[in-house]
Amino acid sequence: MRLTVIGSTALDSIETPFGKKEDILGGSATYASLSASFFVPVNIISVVGTDFPKKYIRMFKKRDINTSGLEVKERRTFRWKAKYNYDLSYAETLGTELNVFEGFRPVIPPKVSPKDNLLLANIDPHLQSFIFHQIKPAGLVACDTMNLWIEHSKKELLKLLKKVDLFLLNDAEARQLSGENNLFEAARYIADKGTKMIVIKKGEHGALFFSKGLGFIVPAYLLETINDPTGAGDTFAGGMLGYLSSRRKITDRVLRKALVYGSIMASFAVERFSADGLLKTKSKDIKNRYEHFEKLTRF
Amino acid sequence: MRLTVIGSTALDSIETPFGKKEDILGGSATYASLSASFFVPVNIISVVGTDFPKKYIRMFKKRDINTSGLEVKERRTFRWKAKYNYDLSYAETLGTELNVFEGFRPVIPPKVSPKDNLLLANIDPHLQSFIFHQIKPAGLVACDTMNLWIEHSKKELLKLLKKVDLFLLNDAEARQLSGENNLFEAARYIADKGTKMIVIKKGEHGALFFSKGLGFIVPAYLLETINDPTGAGDTFAGGMLGYLSSRRKITDRVLRKALVYGSIMASFAVERFSADGLLKTKSKDIKNRYEHFEKLTRF
Repeated sequence: MRLTVIGSTALDSIETPFGKKEDILGGSATYASLSASFFVPVNIISVVGTDFPKKYIRMFKKRDINTSGLEVKERRTFRWKAKYNYDLSYAETLGTELNVFEGFRPVIPPKVSPKDNLLLANIDPHLQSFIFHQIKPAGLVACDTMNLWIEHSKKELLKLLKKVDLFLLNDAEARQLSGENNLFEAARYIADKGTKMIVIKKGEHGALFFSKGLGFIVPAYLLETINDPTGAGDTFAGGMLGYLSSRRKITDRVLRKALVYGSIMASFAVERFSADGLLKTKSKDIKNRYEHFEKLTRF
Repeated sequence: MRLTVIGSTALDSIETPFGKKEDILGGSATYASLSASFFVPVNIISVVGTDFPKKYIRMFKKRDINTSGLEVKERRTFRWKAKYNYDLSYAETLGTELNVFEGFRPVIPPKVSPKDNLLLANIDPHLQSFIFHQIKPAGLVACDTMNLWIEHSKKELLKLLKKVDLFLLNDAEARQLSGENNLFEAARYIADKGTKMIVIKKGEHGALFFSKGLGFIVPAYLLETINDPTGAGDTFAGGMLGYLSSRRKITDRVLRKALVYGSIMASFAVERFSADGLLKTKSKDIKNRYEHFEKLTRF
């Protein structure tokens, strides 16, 4: 089954203790689409400016990411500037330029079928909601978010939660959204809003899956080198949804494996700046790391 | 096989966001012995003052913890006062009274055989070292520590590390001891000092086991309620060593299961203040939680 991914495509300027890069490829749709494309063909729905390097669009196409929904507008590409200190779990936003995303209301291309699974990667919930209603999805719908939208668009986000099957967010966001410190309570709050399945991502500490209570605890793959945590959560969501879309039936076992694949894909993403970690990854690397992860966690 | 546990026996005054208790049962040897006693008979080697409630000594005896090495001296019991905020991973020490531990040099009782496994639970490395040389252990030797000793008795601790088979410490302590931020590097530093097996405990995020590189990642059992994290690490060490001592042979599989039991035992300890969580636990609870943990982590 194909996966449709909506979200941001960006040029990021990132500083971590391990380096500083300007105008590098970023955005939630970028990371999620690249991650998912290892498992299934992807449709990306997003927008870039005329300053967005053409080589990235060619790269998407080469990776079976359909770009008919990637609009190119006569303005600058969305930009995000951020800094991480040694605690790589938190990004300090230094600047956001919406640019092409201001008032962006995409036309859904014919290639996107309502039957495809849908990942509403992190972007303004108003836009997630608009696209949701344009597509009228019949497949599995997953939604990701971030602290900014919980702060400024909580109402819209909560409305959307009633309509999605799977909601992904990190531990700090789960606490922020629910007002609960305990993650069981936070998951209960979200489930009460209507989402059946919830993934709480804990960065370098793995992730928790809730569906009528806690169902699965997945640790993170421990890395020797982390250069840039940007996009880890988007990559997790893309890997998870990509794997789910590659299976005929979503069973308990398939869901568990999907979370492990999400964790594995995120581990590749953070090893290098921008999407370079994902772009260097081969299918064989994923298989090897998955098998190593099995060895590291079984008892 | 029996397990000998040396460490502190204390009266703690603890404040967490969930309550405040004074002069409650604590100490590394207390938590570790109680935890291990679910798996094997234990010898405790420690010291208390005449103000130490007799009911605790009776309780130890009832749980097959041999107290012939628990000296009672004409002074006050060791006291520790600490406070936790919502980040339960860090205890702020408000006061320490060594009392009976000043100059404590125990006589090893005949009941303690060099053949027993030995857990040098968290206490001054000079004392750990003294007892190590008194016992001349022939079994498995494990050692735990804390930030205070890394700061003030690093040289003595490093000398001891050459002689122990298994070293347990938490992530912050591993970074402090090694001067390395990355936990792989930290484990390599410790292995270079001579300890073959290393457990880096990550509190609510589980633990890592290293033996010639990373061998096992164990998540923590997620809890609905945590009241007092005091003794979690000691309980982990006691559970792990208790389980290892209950097995005839230490295989890779047994080591992995031992870490899971450590994690499970710690989960009981932190649910209540003092050792109340462990004291309320039945063998059946451990079996149930272990099975639940298997369900929560397999994929």
